[in-house]
Amino acid sequence: MSTAEKSLYISFLEQHPLFEGHEEVVRELLPYVSSRIYEKDAAVLHHGDSATSLLVVLKGWVKLTRQTPDGKETIVGLCAEGDLLGEAALFAHASYPYHAHSLVSDTELLFIPAAVIRQMVAKYGWLSAILMELLHGRNGQAQLKLEQMSTMSAAQRLGCFLLRLCNTQPSGMKCLQIPVEKHIIAAYLGMKPETLSRSQQQLKPLGITTQGHEVVVAHIEKLREYVCSSCSESGSCDTEAAS
Amino acid sequence: MSTAEKSLYISFLEQHPLFEGHEEVVRELLPYVSSRIYEKDAAVLHHGDSATSLLVVLKGWVKLTRQTPDGKETIVGLCAEGDLLGEAALFAHASYPYHAHSLVSDTELLFIPAAVIRQMVAKYGWLSAILMELLHGRNGQAQLKLEQMSTMSAAQRLGCFLLRLCNTQPSGMKCLQIPVEKHIIAAYLGMKPETLSRSQQQLKPLGITTQGHEVVVAHIEKLREYVCSSCSESGSCDTEAAS
Repeated sequence: MSTAEKSLYISFLEQHPLFEGHEEVVRELLPYVSSRIYEKDAAVLHHGDSATSLLVVLKGWVKLTRQTPDGKETIVGLCAEGDLLGEAALFAHASYPYHAHSLVSDTELLFIPAAVIRQMVAKYGWLSAILMELLHGRNGQAQLKLEQMSTMSAAQRLGCFLLRLCNTQPSGMKCLQIPVEKHIIAAYLGMKPETLSRSQQQLKPLGITTQGHEVVVAHIEKLREYVCSSCSESGSCDTEAAS
Repeated sequence: MSTAEKSLYISFLEQHPLFEGHEEVVRELLPYVSSRIYEKDAAVLHHGDSATSLLVVLKGWVKLTRQTPDGKETIVGLCAEGDLLGEAALFAHASYPYHAHSLVSDTELLFIPAAVIRQMVAKYGWLSAILMELLHGRNGQAQLKLEQMSTMSAAQRLGCFLLRLCNTQPSGMKCLQIPVEKHIIAAYLGMKPETLSRSQQQLKPLGITTQGHEVVVAHIEKLREYVCSSCSESGSCDTEAAS
């Protein structure tokens, strides 16, 4: 690990919600952390493999998929910068519950060995509390996605996906880079590619324009109004945290 | 709390996955645990209320629902004996993310005050590990349910619901009591009541007969074969744990 890489990882991890405010722990962790860079469409994790590392996306996008014995594939997650994957590594004898593939070239992931993170969880009560809260939040999001399949239109589901990428910015304009193929976003949102195209058209009057991999959200507050009226999390959603 | 009640709660909690093998902790907890009995359709928790207790179903059935601002209701959970609800109580300043209602009369719930369970989590590392694993498993199930909406037929989804109620019994016959109205099970499984009726018909040739609130599964192994071929958890699912 070069000095430049080292200081990049330190500053990234120190700002990550998992370790925020705990610089000493990041420094304790660092000697065990490794990084890997992937080309587009490279296999990162295999479903069923023993969960040997907890991963953090440093750069790029990762797709999480599962396959049924009769050959159907579903996309269960799209991870971008800062997202965690492989949380199974927190538990003894666990295996990864999905395949993971890089979606863009130069996707960079940090690997934290399972034994190291488990040791730290046992040592630091606050870390176990943060991880529990993170797993609880993850759970809430999966529940919400299930709910949205029945309460929201396709255009609203696309809108919610975009709002999450706007993070907690409460209003104003946001320019998003989403270098993920359309059919993958559609599958992730549980719709056909042609429904995604139609949904993009429906969002245009709200000031949302898509050009290639760039999506401009002209008025976040208008998008929020359109999406959140059909969501039971309205008022307590983490996309609203800054408002 | 009478002596009979006290020994009932002790034996129930000592056998619960949360406290199994930790009798001393159950005895430490007991003075703070209270129980409430509900009539059918009684409100147990309100969405948005401060999460003051962690709840365990001692007897009966509880429905978890959420409502969108524009008035749509979704059923996000059906809890039976032994199931936990209100896990938000594990986290400071959290509120319940759903409404909870009893579905049958004489539904009995145990309430563990939030402050007490949080104190125990901080005190006992193994408890925080078990809770983390439980939240992780909960997460996996929500993901799986999402997946099943696209990979499974309605009859297979109903079959999976029944398999879970058979618990980990790997084969043989099982007689299930499900005193929950049909339209509620249908809504929980993301289908219309008439689709549920059709699905029940489709499961008949596999030896599954429904009469009122009683469902007989004649050959669990046949049902498993029918359901699990379309599930990516096949081979590592907790309904198979005993096989």
